[in-house]
Amino acid sequence: MKNDSAPLPTLLPADAPVFLRACFRQPVEHTPIWLMRQAGRYLPDYRAVRAKADFLTMCHTPELSAEVTLQPVNLLGVDAAILFSDLLIPLEAMGATVKFPEGGPEITDAVEQASDVHKLRTPPAIETLGYTAEAVKLIVAGLPAHVPLIGFAGAPFTLASYLIEGGGSKNYQKTKAFLYQHPAEAEILFDKLVTMVADFLNMQIDAGCKAVQIFDSWAGALDPEDYERWGTRYTRRLVQAVRRPGVPVIVFAKGTGTYFDRVAASGADVLGVDWTLPLNVARTHVGPDFALQGNMDPIRLLGPFEQVRATADRILDAAGSAGHIFNLGHGLVPQTPPDHVKRLVDHVHESSAARHRAGG
Amino acid sequence: MKNDSAPLPTLLPADAPVFLRACFRQPVEHTPIWLMRQAGRYLPDYRAVRAKADFLTMCHTPELSAEVTLQPVNLLGVDAAILFSDLLIPLEAMGATVKFPEGGPEITDAVEQASDVHKLRTPPAIETLGYTAEAVKLIVAGLPAHVPLIGFAGAPFTLASYLIEGGGSKNYQKTKAFLYQHPAEAEILFDKLVTMVADFLNMQIDAGCKAVQIFDSWAGALDPEDYERWGTRYTRRLVQAVRRPGVPVIVFAKGTGTYFDRVAASGADVLGVDWTLPLNVARTHVGPDFALQGNMDPIRLLGPFEQVRATADRILDAAGSAGHIFNLGHGLVPQTPPDHVKRLVDHVHESSAARHRAGG
Repeated sequence: MKNDSAPLPTLLPADAPVFLRACFRQPVEHTPIWLMRQAGRYLPDYRAVRAKADFLTMCHTPELSAEVTLQPVNLLGVDAAILFSDLLIPLEAMGATVKFPEGGPEITDAVEQASDVHKLRTPPAIETLGYTAEAVKLIVAGLPAHVPLIGFAGAPFTLASYLIEGGGSKNYQKTKAFLYQHPAEAEILFDKLVTMVADFLNMQIDAGCKAVQIFDSWAGALDPEDYERWGTRYTRRLVQAVRRPGVPVIVFAKGTGTYFDRVAASGADVLGVDWTLPLNVARTHVGPDFALQGNMDPIRLLGPFEQVRATADRILDAAGSAGHIFNLGHGLVPQTPPDHVKRLVDHVHESSAARHRAGG
Repeated sequence: MKNDSAPLPTLLPADAPVFLRACFRQPVEHTPIWLMRQAGRYLPDYRAVRAKADFLTMCHTPELSAEVTLQPVNLLGVDAAILFSDLLIPLEAMGATVKFPEGGPEITDAVEQASDVHKLRTPPAIETLGYTAEAVKLIVAGLPAHVPLIGFAGAPFTLASYLIEGGGSKNYQKTKAFLYQHPAEAEILFDKLVTMVADFLNMQIDAGCKAVQIFDSWAGALDPEDYERWGTRYTRRLVQAVRRPGVPVIVFAKGTGTYFDRVAASGADVLGVDWTLPLNVARTHVGPDFALQGNMDPIRLLGPFEQVRATADRILDAAGSAGHIFNLGHGLVPQTPPDHVKRLVDHVHESSAARHRAGG
């Protein structure tokens, strides 16, 4: 099956980092693994930093962001680092006020009525979010050469939902009602989000990120038609705006397994998959031209390790021979035993190496 | 495609209520429609009752439950009524304490540690939940003959999640960790839930319900393997325990579109579908032997009615010719304009009647 939206083929040298080779579906000696929220509260080293600074200060301070980004690389042996930051950071540059009290983020000065979209700004990222570029430079300087740094940002729908809901949401009612009732203003909002986020991601790549991931964390709230209009359409523009030779773009749209072909239509190099869609089924939906990333339920890591190992093996079996990056279907939770994470990384390396040697 | 789990064929008389005929995939003059939470806060008549009694009192009082159950039948012209009650009602009979403060349900005296499963009781429903049987009798006496009453209860996984989390949850972390860490106690818990819920549903049928719906509202949190073990397995037992000739069983497992065949394996007559899975795709997953119920996003009703109408037509197109009950993919929200709901019911009746006349 040939997918019209498929990214162009890219050929990296055989000694390029294994994570990047897997992103472009080239041969690998083992399946690379990194984990969403690998820099997080489950790690005592992270909590030690967090005890000294609040979450937003950590995002704003290059040295702290760098320190916690590097922790899991050294502790776990993952094949990629991911920038420690937050999806909501660029919304501050656009004029919104972002706070992180217990119980979830609060966004004010955002979109309470349709006309508020005109007040949102799209300043150059380097002028308003330059601390993130500084963090990237510090991280890259501290990373081993074979471990690339992944930058990231939110997709327009997910960011719009924070601006419109003012926080998290159970059913995204305000956001969807906005799209239905004010489509013209919604298009202005989504255009601005593409502009701001593309500039933010390009700044991250300029500063040294070797890949970028676009998180559409709440996309699964949309029906297929709405996803096509408000998900695929703007995510594709974002992918095109940040594409560079050799720098893979990952799109992770959680909860979209029933219309996964529309996620592939973004043209990303790598598609994130949550735990509800087996990777072999995902593969049948999108054809051979994409790498797949996923897809263990992070809560599985709270169970006995024998079950974790069995699940990991099932995922490796379903992934098949090429173009797989092992990951979770959502971020690690604070209650995760760090030892299980470390053993998972080791197991994926060992188990997949045997498979790749066997040509499997 | 023949599905081994398919229910046995049932032939109703041609003058049986259109809702029941659709449940058994028999010819209909128009597609029947009812709406989850059609008795709810979006209706001024409901709010008038609710102003006089709290939510739990309404569930416990047959006259109040009957009054609000009947309201939408008269106001909207829907083809089925659904008992006004709550998923958590049988948990009270099992020994848990249930409260409904603003912000969502709170369940205490439930499952805080694994050994608590032994404390849960499974008394005869008629002795502990007899007020629900009384409500059913009052409702049936007040309904037109062509409008059947649907009884309902929660599926074991969804009820277990309330008992273990103590309320709603974002990621069902405590519930899943319980399943992974304490599978033996989880099986005892799920067995008790099947026993209690089956007896509760059979009591509703004995009292006059003509169909029952099993809600597995949070099943979509599970990966396919866990759904098979904790969803399919127990839901199938529940379906078998309540099956009677001519009384369709509906299973609605929200968010399970990527492994919908495992929902069909419950053997229910009717499968509920949320808005993420187009009905024509759902049909390819389960074959011809099930009726499908759904699948509009309830938030769509907050938009302009022309869009509601277009979405309804798209759903009717996707549903095809037989075995479709129009519904939403989740409950009506309080902000829904009642006029949009009424117009949706009328439109589905008219638009589908033309299709059925045309043999479409």
